[in-house]
Amino acid sequence: MVPFPALIVNKDVCLQNIHSMAEKAHRHNLIFRPHFKTHQSAAIGEWYRSEGTTKIAVSSLPMAGYFARNGWKDITLAFPFSIHWIPEINRWPADVTLNLLFDDPAVAAGALHQLSNSHPCFIKVDNGYGRAGIPVLHTEEILHLAGIIHRHPRHSFAGILIHQGDNYHITDPDELLRTHTRHMKGLAGLIKKMKAAYPGTICSWGDTPSCTLAEDFSEIDEIRPGNFVFYDLMQVSAGVCSLQEVAVTLAAPVISVYPDRNRMILHAGAVHLSKEKLEDRPGYDGYGLLTRMKGLIRGEPLPSLKLSALSQEHGIVTGPGSLLSTISPGDILGVIPVHACLTANLMQRYYTTQGEYLSTIHTEPYR
Amino acid sequence: MVPFPALIVNKDVCLQNIHSMAEKAHRHNLIFRPHFKTHQSAAIGEWYRSEGTTKIAVSSLPMAGYFARNGWKDITLAFPFSIHWIPEINRWPADVTLNLLFDDPAVAAGALHQLSNSHPCFIKVDNGYGRAGIPVLHTEEILHLAGIIHRHPRHSFAGILIHQGDNYHITDPDELLRTHTRHMKGLAGLIKKMKAAYPGTICSWGDTPSCTLAEDFSEIDEIRPGNFVFYDLMQVSAGVCSLQEVAVTLAAPVISVYPDRNRMILHAGAVHLSKEKLEDRPGYDGYGLLTRMKGLIRGEPLPSLKLSALSQEHGIVTGPGSLLSTISPGDILGVIPVHACLTANLMQRYYTTQGEYLSTIHTEPYR
Repeated sequence: MVPFPALIVNKDVCLQNIHSMAEKAHRHNLIFRPHFKTHQSAAIGEWYRSEGTTKIAVSSLPMAGYFARNGWKDITLAFPFSIHWIPEINRWPADVTLNLLFDDPAVAAGALHQLSNSHPCFIKVDNGYGRAGIPVLHTEEILHLAGIIHRHPRHSFAGILIHQGDNYHITDPDELLRTHTRHMKGLAGLIKKMKAAYPGTICSWGDTPSCTLAEDFSEIDEIRPGNFVFYDLMQVSAGVCSLQEVAVTLAAPVISVYPDRNRMILHAGAVHLSKEKLEDRPGYDGYGLLTRMKGLIRGEPLPSLKLSALSQEHGIVTGPGSLLSTISPGDILGVIPVHACLTANLMQRYYTTQGEYLSTIHTEPYR
Repeated sequence: MVPFPALIVNKDVCLQNIHSMAEKAHRHNLIFRPHFKTHQSAAIGEWYRSEGTTKIAVSSLPMAGYFARNGWKDITLAFPFSIHWIPEINRWPADVTLNLLFDDPAVAAGALHQLSNSHPCFIKVDNGYGRAGIPVLHTEEILHLAGIIHRHPRHSFAGILIHQGDNYHITDPDELLRTHTRHMKGLAGLIKKMKAAYPGTICSWGDTPSCTLAEDFSEIDEIRPGNFVFYDLMQVSAGVCSLQEVAVTLAAPVISVYPDRNRMILHAGAVHLSKEKLEDRPGYDGYGLLTRMKGLIRGEPLPSLKLSALSQEHGIVTGPGSLLSTISPGDILGVIPVHACLTANLMQRYYTTQGEYLSTIHTEPYR
């Protein structure tokens, strides 16, 4: 029996999302390196095998270890290198390639000789997002760091890695495409210089909105999208995907209904959905979109209800009393999460629409 | 070795927080039933034993089971009853009292006869917070529900339960005390009627701000605060406690420092801290307060740095380049979390300032 609240994953939708992205990578002659931080599940990782996927990205060292134990042999740890990882990385299995990421010449110069295995190393480039990385126009600094890596006897320079995170803040697909074209043009100079200096340079690019919508990958060799496996309400509200393409639904019991107060309590709180909220996205504002459920299958959306506040375990739903009075305590409603990655991280396990239990890194025994 | 990022708990501060609250309950002749949803740890639960604590509250059925397995014999499941719990509650160990919570006469009437063990039952009363419960002025409805419970041959009416959650939105201690006095006056009529009808009626009251600051518990028989064991930046910013009383700190490695861009990347993201953010609380705005660390001990606050954005694993810190240039990749900084309950839920384990590992419900093997 499925213990509610439960995160339900529709395998058919996932497989279609994976197939579409893998096919797109193939069509554009790109390396497909899906980011597994979204699902964090070895079982869901297996769903990529039929597409021939062999390379993955992860966002933490424990996650790299988890997928290595589950048979993945080429893993990019797509988070800037932390010197605290060195002891664990030096116990890394010799038959699994662990690609590392640097954005600081001093850190690389200090760390590379302490790493006893060989690692292909990427350079994190900040293409204007403003999170991590060397700014794209600082070509000399990027070449300097590439040289430090390249000259090291054990390690190799693999390429540059970009996460265009500001694509998540664009809510108009046309604007996203225009921005993307500008990014491709802006990258051309750097990529040309890097490939001249290091002919095998890979330009690894990741974000679900552009990987889904764009068709211009002229400067890109590898894509690392993650969220697309599930998509979520943030992507729907930005026009990146349809509601039908969202593969996960939180199935949450109705606890109390107060039609006279235009309010209802759902067993769906911050420990299930995270506190990610959509604002100024008409029709999607709040902590998730409510839907009917038929068993474990998501039914029609209920856009007149709003998941307007969350506490640790409670979700407060507001809406017209006439609709609320058709809902009873014990009914199961669906919530399409705002941010599937954070919801999946909190829920720690899945049930498929067929009721099959799928574990994640969190539901393996702690090492 | 402590794997960073790590949630560090200062046991001495916790013990002092527990002692102060237990002593306050004793002084006011109140039942002390701490809410264990904050720490979710059997090891930390043991720290209450020296205060003679025997009664606890939890926010979910799995959490009730976890603490029952760890020796707690009187547990209030302080979340409105869900009919989906019935099969599991009917497997509940006979020697552990499980107090339940109802706020809907129809749910209670339907469920009570399906519960095969005996349960003391509370009624959730909404004292103006507007989340769950029967409004405090609906005395007849409350008495009607109490009667349904009382007349049931197996179960007993225990009392009413209130969570004054709007106390978390008050940022001025004087205003909180005035509001609290108003709440006590507003409750008097209901409590008088309930105790006349059911002499043993307990009025159970929970929220850390009022339990910490108030001295008027005239209508209250039991307190159920949870957050006070750790406190957090939300409580500091509201004047409920001092920084020194906050017992938890996220110890997070510095990843990259960009003094020329007035920015730094910390390994502290939404999967560590949650997306809880303070706004309009001068000096405390953002996703947490940065501090120095000396080993696993929290050092001086760094209020000129701001944890201004979080992604899944990254925290973006902004501040003056002159200060940032004194910080190096690999340094460990502290983050006092905005909301300790959500941070603890995400981190799933603790290390004490002495480096001792403490597990939680999440780091027990999945049942």
